[in-house]
Amino acid sequence: MSSTTGTRGESVTPANSAFDTVADTTDVTALLERGRALSTPVLRAAVDRLAPPMDTVAAYHFGWIDAQGQPADGDGGKAVRPALALLSAEAAGAAAEAGVPGAVAVELVHNFSLLHDDLMDGDEQRRHRDTVWKVHGPAQAILVGDALFALANEVLLELGTVEAGRATRRLTAASRKLIDGQAQDISYEHRERVTVEECLEMEGNKTGALLACACSIGAVLGGADDRTADTLEAYGYHLGLAFQAVDDLLGIWGDPESTGKQTWSDLRQRKKSLPVVAALAAGGPASGRLGELLAADAKSSDFDSFSEEEFAARAALIEEAGGREWTAQEARRQHAVAIEALHRVDMPQTVRAQLTALADFVVVRKR
Amino acid sequence: MSSTTGTRGESVTPANSAFDTVADTTDVTALLERGRALSTPVLRAAVDRLAPPMDTVAAYHFGWIDAQGQPADGDGGKAVRPALALLSAEAAGAAAEAGVPGAVAVELVHNFSLLHDDLMDGDEQRRHRDTVWKVHGPAQAILVGDALFALANEVLLELGTVEAGRATRRLTAASRKLIDGQAQDISYEHRERVTVEECLEMEGNKTGALLACACSIGAVLGGADDRTADTLEAYGYHLGLAFQAVDDLLGIWGDPESTGKQTWSDLRQRKKSLPVVAALAAGGPASGRLGELLAADAKSSDFDSFSEEEFAARAALIEEAGGREWTAQEARRQHAVAIEALHRVDMPQTVRAQLTALADFVVVRKR
Repeated sequence: MSSTTGTRGESVTPANSAFDTVADTTDVTALLERGRALSTPVLRAAVDRLAPPMDTVAAYHFGWIDAQGQPADGDGGKAVRPALALLSAEAAGAAAEAGVPGAVAVELVHNFSLLHDDLMDGDEQRRHRDTVWKVHGPAQAILVGDALFALANEVLLELGTVEAGRATRRLTAASRKLIDGQAQDISYEHRERVTVEECLEMEGNKTGALLACACSIGAVLGGADDRTADTLEAYGYHLGLAFQAVDDLLGIWGDPESTGKQTWSDLRQRKKSLPVVAALAAGGPASGRLGELLAADAKSSDFDSFSEEEFAARAALIEEAGGREWTAQEARRQHAVAIEALHRVDMPQTVRAQLTALADFVVVRKR
Repeated sequence: MSSTTGTRGESVTPANSAFDTVADTTDVTALLERGRALSTPVLRAAVDRLAPPMDTVAAYHFGWIDAQGQPADGDGGKAVRPALALLSAEAAGAAAEAGVPGAVAVELVHNFSLLHDDLMDGDEQRRHRDTVWKVHGPAQAILVGDALFALANEVLLELGTVEAGRATRRLTAASRKLIDGQAQDISYEHRERVTVEECLEMEGNKTGALLACACSIGAVLGGADDRTADTLEAYGYHLGLAFQAVDDLLGIWGDPESTGKQTWSDLRQRKKSLPVVAALAAGGPASGRLGELLAADAKSSDFDSFSEEEFAARAALIEEAGGREWTAQEARRQHAVAIEALHRVDMPQTVRAQLTALADFVVVRKR
């Protein structure tokens, strides 16, 4: 690692008094593991229903097989959403199992969006592997994304209950926001300036809405009323914004070994992420210099051959202008609002403690 | 028009005793017009909900504005599906208006699939205009397709009724089949041989399933039981197969002025459509010669620069081997099965007559 890139790989959210509640990591690991253990068999059974070759392409995407079709034990992601969906059911006084179809449906929508976004964004790597469009071509990425999206609704609606209908309606609303957010994200890449408010709105759509749905869908399936579901959605929405703020920090300063992405990934893609827009909005010499550089970059024909040092210089200016610290603080602010919402729902103490531990995990993670 | 292309533009289903029931065209025009008049305002209101620039891109796709964003009175398609959805409601004894959300949802799913399929297939023209991916780029075609798909479920689920939940479940099942069908269609293009049975299965998924849903969704929203809905689906499924057989004829011998597609469109795309697979399965000298030619074409690097005459020669072989006549007969067979299903549902005589007239229209259309 060159000296100019020396700040990568550090914790993006350094120890801070706001994190006095940071959970025992074993506990969170067990919650994530439970979410995976209960939802993966149902997810695999759903994916098995797809017509060939979509079943194989989807299995590759989820890391169950490699590009040659051989069984693999790939990295299926952190599985935060399934863990949240099961806790959501328990928050409503139901068994964790009641949340499983919700966990699976949310994972299907999440992965539908990854398949399409990777293609639209031209991302070649995800979870340390080539993306689906790189391996199986753009048509399969579109098609399998579509199929997973349809499957998400199918998994819920075949329950045939009134609650399933309500859950599907919430999932559909979240999916629409997810798509709105991707549309905003793409349009912002072509704009010179994006306000902090616009960026937060985009991230609320792109990340907040589906995490909000994960946090309420189990409760809805477990019979919770709309008010309880709405409050759990508020927890999830702000957790999603905290999650995304951390993601934006990792997108610039994350360690490629952990994130599975290229160095300075978001800068290479001209993403107007929170650290960038906050730095540009901050004013002052570093902010001004950054604005000039990014404006020149937008017109540069050499951008694709920029060296590590050129991206590192931009990252240093973002940090100097305060964009990195502002984003870390934003993660803490959103985390606090999320925790506050948790206290407005009447739920078993152990479930509240577990949802708190997951929120803490989300803001201290390194990938 | 050159002499070798002289058979294009003729009616693909010449007058035949099977069409004694061919309806008064004014009647069908009125049914299509009613479907359009009742569903278009609701469709436009739904599309208006999309975040920019997706609302504009969708409006372009539907023909409401031109590529420069100016209001247009474009060709929004035949609108067979909305007309069927309204009649479906009336078949269950409900008002035509009860079928409107179903008509809109089915149109949204249909157009989602057009947006994605045009991109996957590389089709540059639809309804006499450049396709969305040509005008607005691949990312917008993916994104707006996704948004229309989500909107379809939203339009139904926001009704908040038990019937809406049942309708959404049927629409989701149809959407999954639609996607399966596109997957099969793509995979068949890379195969040397496809059986007639495989082709019919693919067309049943790609066209039959959504038309089946259009024919039952209004009834479901109008309170029909599952048995009635299933029988109306059977009518729609076989009508869809008849529709697709005619489409396959138009895809080779249709008049570009009417279809809005290139001459020999399906042959240029190496589509293994019904006339092709039936001709290949027929045996005999023309069938054998066609097989040799298509096998050579699959390996040819000059394929993209083939002349009109080369495609015309292939079309002539398909006709000589009996593929054209077999497909026209298949349209009539499926039409008959569809009409037979209509008689198994207890419905007002006028509605049955109108559904019959629409079925007749579908098999004699020229675009």
